[in-house]
Amino acid sequence: MKKLLFALLVLGFSVDSFSQAEDSIFLKRISDYILVNGKSYDDLRVLTKQVGARLSGSAGMYKAETWGLKTLQAAGADNAWLQECLVPHWVRGGKDEVTALYKNSKKSLNVLALGNSNSSGKLLTKEVIEIKNFAELEAKKNAVKDKIVFYNYPFNNAFISTFLAYRDAGVYRSQGPSRAAKYGAAGVIVRSMSHSTDNNPHTGATAYNDSFPKIPAVAIGLQDADWLSNQLKNTTVSVGLSTHGKFLPDTIGHNVIGELKGTEFPNEYITIGGHLDSWDAAEGAHDDGAGCVQTIEILRAFKALGYKPKRTIRFVLFANEENGLRGGNKYADEAKAKGEKHIFALESDAGGFTPIGFGVSASETQFEKISSWKSLLLPYSPAEIRRGGGGADIGPLARTQGTPVAGLSPDSQRYFDYHHAANDVFENVNKRELQLGAINMAALVYLVDKYGL
Amino acid sequence: MKKLLFALLVLGFSVDSFSQAEDSIFLKRISDYILVNGKSYDDLRVLTKQVGARLSGSAGMYKAETWGLKTLQAAGADNAWLQECLVPHWVRGGKDEVTALYKNSKKSLNVLALGNSNSSGKLLTKEVIEIKNFAELEAKKNAVKDKIVFYNYPFNNAFISTFLAYRDAGVYRSQGPSRAAKYGAAGVIVRSMSHSTDNNPHTGATAYNDSFPKIPAVAIGLQDADWLSNQLKNTTVSVGLSTHGKFLPDTIGHNVIGELKGTEFPNEYITIGGHLDSWDAAEGAHDDGAGCVQTIEILRAFKALGYKPKRTIRFVLFANEENGLRGGNKYADEAKAKGEKHIFALESDAGGFTPIGFGVSASETQFEKISSWKSLLLPYSPAEIRRGGGGADIGPLARTQGTPVAGLSPDSQRYFDYHHAANDVFENVNKRELQLGAINMAALVYLVDKYGL
Repeated sequence: MKKLLFALLVLGFSVDSFSQAEDSIFLKRISDYILVNGKSYDDLRVLTKQVGARLSGSAGMYKAETWGLKTLQAAGADNAWLQECLVPHWVRGGKDEVTALYKNSKKSLNVLALGNSNSSGKLLTKEVIEIKNFAELEAKKNAVKDKIVFYNYPFNNAFISTFLAYRDAGVYRSQGPSRAAKYGAAGVIVRSMSHSTDNNPHTGATAYNDSFPKIPAVAIGLQDADWLSNQLKNTTVSVGLSTHGKFLPDTIGHNVIGELKGTEFPNEYITIGGHLDSWDAAEGAHDDGAGCVQTIEILRAFKALGYKPKRTIRFVLFANEENGLRGGNKYADEAKAKGEKHIFALESDAGGFTPIGFGVSASETQFEKISSWKSLLLPYSPAEIRRGGGGADIGPLARTQGTPVAGLSPDSQRYFDYHHAANDVFENVNKRELQLGAINMAALVYLVDKYGL
Repeated sequence: MKKLLFALLVLGFSVDSFSQAEDSIFLKRISDYILVNGKSYDDLRVLTKQVGARLSGSAGMYKAETWGLKTLQAAGADNAWLQECLVPHWVRGGKDEVTALYKNSKKSLNVLALGNSNSSGKLLTKEVIEIKNFAELEAKKNAVKDKIVFYNYPFNNAFISTFLAYRDAGVYRSQGPSRAAKYGAAGVIVRSMSHSTDNNPHTGATAYNDSFPKIPAVAIGLQDADWLSNQLKNTTVSVGLSTHGKFLPDTIGHNVIGELKGTEFPNEYITIGGHLDSWDAAEGAHDDGAGCVQTIEILRAFKALGYKPKRTIRFVLFANEENGLRGGNKYADEAKAKGEKHIFALESDAGGFTPIGFGVSASETQFEKISSWKSLLLPYSPAEIRRGGGGADIGPLARTQGTPVAGLSPDSQRYFDYHHAANDVFENVNKRELQLGAINMAALVYLVDKYGL
């Protein structure tokens, strides 16, 4: 490489183009290493198939922490440790069931209780009322008492980014149960946050409002949602609903952290991460096994290529993103308490799909600096640098010390086919798409480490 | 819409920004129509599950032609017809088998004869010699006589675009058999053109050189290729190879064409297309069912939105791309014979994945004009407009009358997981990714129709 760089200099390249060429060569080395020798896909197989589901407080969480620590050490971390934090301990408690009763017939519907939701106690048999949106709920507030409210607000397919559809519909999952309870509803069925063509229900956290009864709530698969809506056009439908969710006392969980010590500015920190927890119904392959194994892959690539970072780089598998964010909060709190200066944080928590670029929340100057690296990133993705973005787990760093944050933006078309559903499994992750995400993250972190922000 | 346009004018927008706003609004209408009401995914289900495989000359080809004509008519074509052409009629003739014989053991390997390849006649039992590349073949040319040459040239994973890996490795499939036959080899096993993690063999056309014996040739799944290579490190391996391919006489096939007549320049033609044929081993969902149903979707969207094109737009399902290109040649020949002026052609034949942009083969002026539309396309894809590209079926138009051509460029990471293999099925196509391809194609065709090239 030295010969090439010398040749470039002799040919009259400026220091800037010298740096650009050097950077370009190093990014290609990262890419080659990950695409040819990368282990993220193998890591993901172990995390999903041997560890499996890993909801906060579950045995899977502890197994995952042990796996994470060992894997970060094996990848070459200078130091690796567990950072303790209390995590909520919600359990599903049994098999969620909803049976539709109509015209002397019965049909079992494909449902999954929402995360954090309560047990129905005994089997709850009630009439169903379909509610298209909150405006309709308000209009029909006198009609929902003692009924099961069926929120049938569909994903808006017209959005190009599926995350916009999620944001649009997501309020029915988070706020729907308490808003129905306010008017006396006995339970809630929410159309799954998805536009998949299958019938898998998609769980995810709901947030009860303490002012109202905490009624049981389930997500329903899209085919069954359409079926139920069609039935309700012609007839009365009751359902027998049975859920078993409850909170056990908070328990001990951990962020799993690996570190490469900075050689020039060891007291400046860059954090890369994903979250280690998943919902209980699946393997959490895209959400967020992908982000975890990409994070570890970057550490492995830096070590394998002999890269000695200027700044201290932290590789963090965060605890409890799904239903509490205790890991992200703990990490930021401890950073603040220790006076650590965090100059940048990057998260991957939107699936292991082909990367499109990054969403960045930073000052205008920092945003411009990151944008100026676009040509270096372009060989590895469309390198769209957009304003706004980051990640749930690194948000607390931004809030507590103004750290500029970014989130990897993968192609979003398939994410909500799998998100929080039983089909979020290893088989639905493509090896090269996963690796390309790691390459783009490694490239951005390398540039931030080298040039600062 | 008129009110909005009027308001924009009043606000002082120039004619250019007026046009831009009008275009932007129409492209959004196309996008909304396809994402919300599109039928391409349903069409693909019928084409793959009810029609199925459709190799040139097979019963499936005729079924597909009938389906295509009916579907173009139903989508609203002003005219739709079959354009006759002779097509080659290669048949697989039976189940391809390769059994490895080693250390008193046997193992059946997962293989598929290459398209256009010959029967082995009787079971051929010969020793295997592994050949890494053509340089090694030349070095070992005296050692291959009467053996089965096993070309084990892997896809280069370091390429970001998988089509570069395909181009790099593809010569072993196309030229490998005859180059081995030149030195007396009895048969050939080619490592599949893929970097998938499964064991499906990937077929595809080979091209015999008439100067040498036309020896039987199969593709082998990657896991079995690695297994065979490992065995050969330690021991001698023979295989029993049996294939049954042959050519029947050329037969009659058809391009299936739908047309919307131009209102201002009816004698200027724009062609959009994909190819209707597929290999026999699978449903041809990505290759190229996707391109066919996207083509029909664009016609349907234009009709539904009341779009009256200035130029005549042809929606073409080409015959015989896989092993002859007779359909594309016939289309260009007839266009030339009739003096049709083809101002642009666009093909989708790289899978139904999320689009990245277009590859364009055109004059510098035309390329710049297409590039100037990038901001209009950006809401629907990264809109990367790259030099070079088109499609096999529209290549003859470019050659015979210099028509500028473009090819939709979808994300390429998964394409060679499925290409020409048994898993190129409906289930591996994502509805929204498929639709986004159609949206981007429709947008480009709309702009070319409106502004010319």
